[in-house]
Amino acid sequence: MRKVFNFSPGPAMLPEAVLKTAQAEMLNWHGTEMSAMELPHRGMHFQEVMQQTESDLRTLLAIPPHYRVLFLPDGAAAQFTMVPLNLLGDKKCADYIQTGIWSKKALTEAERYGAINIAATLTKCDGLLALPPQSTWSLDEKAAYVHYASNETIDGVQFHWVPETGSVPLVGDFSSDILSRPLDVERYGLIYASAQKNMGQAGLTVLIIREDLIQDPLPGTPTLYTYKVHAKHHSMAHTPPTYSWYITGLVLAWLKAQGGVDAIFQINQRKACHLYDCIDRSNGFYVSPVHPDCRSMMNVVYDIHEKTLEPIFLEEAAKHGLVYLKGHRLRGGIRASIYNAMPEAGVLLLADFMHTFMKQYG
Amino acid sequence: MRKVFNFSPGPAMLPEAVLKTAQAEMLNWHGTEMSAMELPHRGMHFQEVMQQTESDLRTLLAIPPHYRVLFLPDGAAAQFTMVPLNLLGDKKCADYIQTGIWSKKALTEAERYGAINIAATLTKCDGLLALPPQSTWSLDEKAAYVHYASNETIDGVQFHWVPETGSVPLVGDFSSDILSRPLDVERYGLIYASAQKNMGQAGLTVLIIREDLIQDPLPGTPTLYTYKVHAKHHSMAHTPPTYSWYITGLVLAWLKAQGGVDAIFQINQRKACHLYDCIDRSNGFYVSPVHPDCRSMMNVVYDIHEKTLEPIFLEEAAKHGLVYLKGHRLRGGIRASIYNAMPEAGVLLLADFMHTFMKQYG
Repeated sequence: MRKVFNFSPGPAMLPEAVLKTAQAEMLNWHGTEMSAMELPHRGMHFQEVMQQTESDLRTLLAIPPHYRVLFLPDGAAAQFTMVPLNLLGDKKCADYIQTGIWSKKALTEAERYGAINIAATLTKCDGLLALPPQSTWSLDEKAAYVHYASNETIDGVQFHWVPETGSVPLVGDFSSDILSRPLDVERYGLIYASAQKNMGQAGLTVLIIREDLIQDPLPGTPTLYTYKVHAKHHSMAHTPPTYSWYITGLVLAWLKAQGGVDAIFQINQRKACHLYDCIDRSNGFYVSPVHPDCRSMMNVVYDIHEKTLEPIFLEEAAKHGLVYLKGHRLRGGIRASIYNAMPEAGVLLLADFMHTFMKQYG
Repeated sequence: MRKVFNFSPGPAMLPEAVLKTAQAEMLNWHGTEMSAMELPHRGMHFQEVMQQTESDLRTLLAIPPHYRVLFLPDGAAAQFTMVPLNLLGDKKCADYIQTGIWSKKALTEAERYGAINIAATLTKCDGLLALPPQSTWSLDEKAAYVHYASNETIDGVQFHWVPETGSVPLVGDFSSDILSRPLDVERYGLIYASAQKNMGQAGLTVLIIREDLIQDPLPGTPTLYTYKVHAKHHSMAHTPPTYSWYITGLVLAWLKAQGGVDAIFQINQRKACHLYDCIDRSNGFYVSPVHPDCRSMMNVVYDIHEKTLEPIFLEEAAKHGLVYLKGHRLRGGIRASIYNAMPEAGVLLLADFMHTFMKQYG
């Protein structure tokens, strides 16, 4: 195992087995003497990559047949525009749940294309950041859709329940927690997720969309921002980011070999517990700003009560091979992003380090 | 050297040295014990990749300081929309030169956003495909810009001269020939090129844009389709396709080591000559549909006079390690794409094979 653990929020750590396969195949994919990077997208070789990747994703998330899977270029931020352009339709209005910077960015972009209702916002409970209970949401039954972010990476806030939106399609940004826990696809109209946290490298976004929502977009929508075009061409309307697709395929195969989503969920829960327990038992040396009901299993955000210790913490941690632990520039503090690929050993090492650091400076 | 030569039009062959570096560094980029794929885009490590890549591109193409270089996600097809959205401005009209399927796609998309004048189209000369001489172009001096594709991959037609557009900015799609020959950047307002032919892997597009052309886009332009946004954020408005950027960096370093653009141009000219000579000396067994004045140095397109021999040609060629030679599905025939990374040895092997095949079946 590598001796450096990268706690970056994304692009993030990848499974060592995936990197080793990519390394071994770099000049010779499946005996072709070509790199996966060199395979033309319409050739029989890449077709194999495509089909296997979609098939594995369908298996891992039990995606029903009336949902289409699209592999699109660029990151999830492009979806902040594509969702309203493709889903607003004649209704021209949508509900957004604002629980952090990513959902705020999504709704700010959507406001350029329709009437956006902020149906609920991040709140406080016992002085801690908390998700608004569904009972407080002001949903509009005439909305074209309801949008929310399943996990907010900057504050480390995560939904541990699925919003109930009746007949209004629910759109979920799962960029930072897809495949980390079971997901009931049928509760959603559209799920989107960029690849660089739990599914591969940056530059690819996966969509899981209910077929009936693939409609004509608003006038003026760029051709390559149109779901209908990508669906019609099976994500091949133009040259797709082939190598990113290949890497995602390797990640999905790895996840299947780990026992799938249920198995990784058990590990992810343990990993998060190691860190939150360490924080909660630190007698206030480490402070979590998030209410226990909505703490993120993917991004463990915390502060050191004595802020001047934070740069020292980061510097010392790096000496132990624990890198990229600095909180987001808009928030500061410490953030340990522990996606699927972060081994439990890395999290245990961080918990040990936190304990030792507290003893030394507490 | 690998024994398989991939003549695909893109994603295409990459230099073996680049793949070997990528392989060696896969689990340990520059001693970090992290893959380049795992580096967070705002961290100091990736900043090094970014800066070196831009600096090498500037050196290779002698890009003047008043031109910005942008590294954008997705392929060049996204530019078919972004160019009109960002450059049409108040003038609302532009001139397009239609010389093949790519420039046709570009203008079809542009027509959705403004008044597009097709100033010239592909023509015939001595019964062969030919580029329209500039004297026949009907340019509009009030156009916001003039757009053309420097090389058309499907028919194998290439400009060996630079259009003269006076004070109207010239926009060039150089996706399939950037860095293959010298380029006088100052003749252009905007140059764009996707990476997967001469610069790396699919999913990245490089823009070289004169600073004064970075203006407010048309209303409703998606935020991530806005040049101004990408320029302001130094191509970091959101998570960029980091690994694609890294691979492009390796390709540029390799090109510098080959002696740069002038040196590769010499090799590329020789490579193209090997094949066109073979065609021209075949007494009509192989037929080039393109006038010698505008034959592509990157995509050598030809037919076998007896069409029924083509499937046999492709099958036999593959047995010799010469793969992906089939012409585009819209055109048929044979196409040998011989970008910078195709070794001269691969081209000589193909020329030998063509000669032997002709002897056997001619």
